[in-house]
Amino acid sequence: MTVRIDKLALIGIGLLGASIARACRRAGCAETIVCADINADHRREALTLGLVEEAHEDPAKAVAGADMVILCIPVGACADAAAAIRDAMKPGAILSDVGSVKEMIARSVAPHVRPDVHFIPAHPVAGTEQSGPSAGFAELFDNRWCIITPLENTDEAALRRLTAFWQALGSRTEIMDAKHHDLVLAITSHVPHLIAYNIVITADDLETVTEREVIKYSAGGFRDFTRIAASDPVMWRDVFLNNREAVLEMLGRFSEDLSMLQRAIRSGDGKHLYELFSRSRRIRRAIIDAGQETPAPNFGRNMPADKTTPEQGRD
Amino acid sequence: MTVRIDKLALIGIGLLGASIARACRRAGCAETIVCADINADHRREALTLGLVEEAHEDPAKAVAGADMVILCIPVGACADAAAAIRDAMKPGAILSDVGSVKEMIARSVAPHVRPDVHFIPAHPVAGTEQSGPSAGFAELFDNRWCIITPLENTDEAALRRLTAFWQALGSRTEIMDAKHHDLVLAITSHVPHLIAYNIVITADDLETVTEREVIKYSAGGFRDFTRIAASDPVMWRDVFLNNREAVLEMLGRFSEDLSMLQRAIRSGDGKHLYELFSRSRRIRRAIIDAGQETPAPNFGRNMPADKTTPEQGRD
Repeated sequence: MTVRIDKLALIGIGLLGASIARACRRAGCAETIVCADINADHRREALTLGLVEEAHEDPAKAVAGADMVILCIPVGACADAAAAIRDAMKPGAILSDVGSVKEMIARSVAPHVRPDVHFIPAHPVAGTEQSGPSAGFAELFDNRWCIITPLENTDEAALRRLTAFWQALGSRTEIMDAKHHDLVLAITSHVPHLIAYNIVITADDLETVTEREVIKYSAGGFRDFTRIAASDPVMWRDVFLNNREAVLEMLGRFSEDLSMLQRAIRSGDGKHLYELFSRSRRIRRAIIDAGQETPAPNFGRNMPADKTTPEQGRD
Repeated sequence: MTVRIDKLALIGIGLLGASIARACRRAGCAETIVCADINADHRREALTLGLVEEAHEDPAKAVAGADMVILCIPVGACADAAAAIRDAMKPGAILSDVGSVKEMIARSVAPHVRPDVHFIPAHPVAGTEQSGPSAGFAELFDNRWCIITPLENTDEAALRRLTAFWQALGSRTEIMDAKHHDLVLAITSHVPHLIAYNIVITADDLETVTEREVIKYSAGGFRDFTRIAASDPVMWRDVFLNNREAVLEMLGRFSEDLSMLQRAIRSGDGKHLYELFSRSRRIRRAIIDAGQETPAPNFGRNMPADKTTPEQGRD
C-alpha cells in the first residue's frame, strides 16, 4: 500500500521530527511538510535545512489543514500539545506520536482529541544520542521496528494509513497492546538507559578515581555506556516518570540478578559466573541475525576495513 | 626510543596475542615471533594467518631464547604458565602480561619468576568482544592506553624497553600502582562488563517479555550492552575472581546510586532525574575529545557518510 499525504505536520523538530521529515522527502510521500517548535533556533534550522516548508511557534497554526500530525516531543509535553491543537485539527486527520511510553500517552492525550480525529499512538524504536534538527537523517528508521498501539475504537483505514506511512519511511511495523509495549520497552530500552545514566553518575562521584582517569581509560567498556547516557535528559526524565510501574518492576529484577552476581563474586563461585556469562553471546548473535545490530567488532569503531565486513565481523 | 626484539614469545594467541603479533609486524620491531597455545585450532590458525613463525603446545618450548615473553591468557591461568616457563626463560629476558587485573597477577606470578628475569605486569586497555587468533588486528592498540605496573624492584632499563615496545605498537603508556590500577579498571571496565552481563541475564529470564521481543526491539538501547556482554566468559570470570575487592566496592557504589534513582522515579522527582541525567553529555564529550571514542552518533552504526565525519558527529 502506497501512502500519499497532502500535508504533514510535525509538532517538534528535534532528532525524531527532523528524521521523519527527511525520510518522508526520501520516500516522496508528503506534498507539504510543516512543523511547530517552541525553540526559535530549531525553527530557523529546520527551514535552513529544507526539512519543512513552514515552521511555526504555535502548534495550532502548523496543524491547520494537515492530514497527518505527529507529536515529536517529550512524552510529558504531549497532553498540552494535544490540547493546544484540538480545535485546529482537520476533521478526519490522523494524530500520532513517537513517544517511548504508550499507555500514559494514550491516557493523557485521548481526552484532548476530538471524536472526528483518528488518534493512534506509535513508537519507532530508533534514535541516536544526539538532539536537534541537524541530528536528523533519512535512514534512522530503516529496518527498525515501529510499534503501533491502537486504542480500542481505532478506525481500520486510519490504522492502515499510519502503518503504510511508517513502512514508507523504512520501518517494519508491529501492532501491540500499549501495556505490553511499556513492559517490553522497559527492559529493552528504559532500564538500559537508566543503568547507563547510573554508572556515569557513580563514576563521576568517586573520590578514589579521578574523572580524568575515568575518561582516559574508558575504552575498557565504560565509554559504551556513555553513548546512551548522553541522550536527551528531558525526554528520558519523562519516560521514567510516565512508565514508572514497568520500569520499577524491571529494575527490581535487574537488582535481584545483580545481587546474585555479587554473591557469586564474593564467594568466588567461578563455575556460576562462567555459566551466566556464557549465555550472552547467543543473544547478541540473535540480535545481529535479526538485522538489529552490526556484526562488526567494537561496533566497527576504529576497525580496519577487512574487519567490518559481515563475514569478518562474525565470531 | 626504538625497540628491537630478536625473539618475541606470546603465551596464548587469542584476540590479544594475535593483535600484538600483527602490530609488531606492522612496526617491524620483532625479528621472530613464536607462540604457545593449548588450543590446537588456534595454533594452526596462527601459522596459517602468518602471525607467528612457530606455534607450540608447550609454553616452555616457545619461550626458549626469547627476549620478551608476554602472557596473553586469562588472569587465572598466568601463575601456572609462569611456573611452566620458569626454567626455560632466557636470562635477562622481560616477562609481561596483558591482564585486566594487576595486583593479583603480580602476587601470583612473581613467585614463579627467576631473579634473572624482568617481570613487569602491564595492561593494554583495548579489546573487542571477539575471541581467537582471527579476531586480532594491528590497529587494536592505536591511541589506546597501556598501563604498566612495575614491581618495587623493577629494572629501569627493562621498564624503558617494555614502554618503548607498547609505544611501537601504537599505544600511549602510563605507569601506575597496581592497586590503583585495579580500582580504576573496576569502574571503567569491570563493573560495566558485570552490569552488561547482568541485564542480558535479566532480559533472558523474564516471563512477561519473550526472548524474541527482546531481540526484535533491542535497538532501543539493549543491543549496546550485548556487545561487551559477548566478551570471553573465561577471561571475565577470572577478572571478577581476581579483582573481587575493588569490584565489590564499586558495585556497592553503583547499587547505592541506583537505589537513589529508583527512589526518584518512585516519588516522581523529575527535577532530580533531570539534574542527574544532564551530567552525562559532558563526560561523553570529554571522552570523545580525549580520542577514546568516536564522535559519530550511534557509534557510526548504519549512519550515512555525512553523519560520521567528526564535524557532523558533534552535538
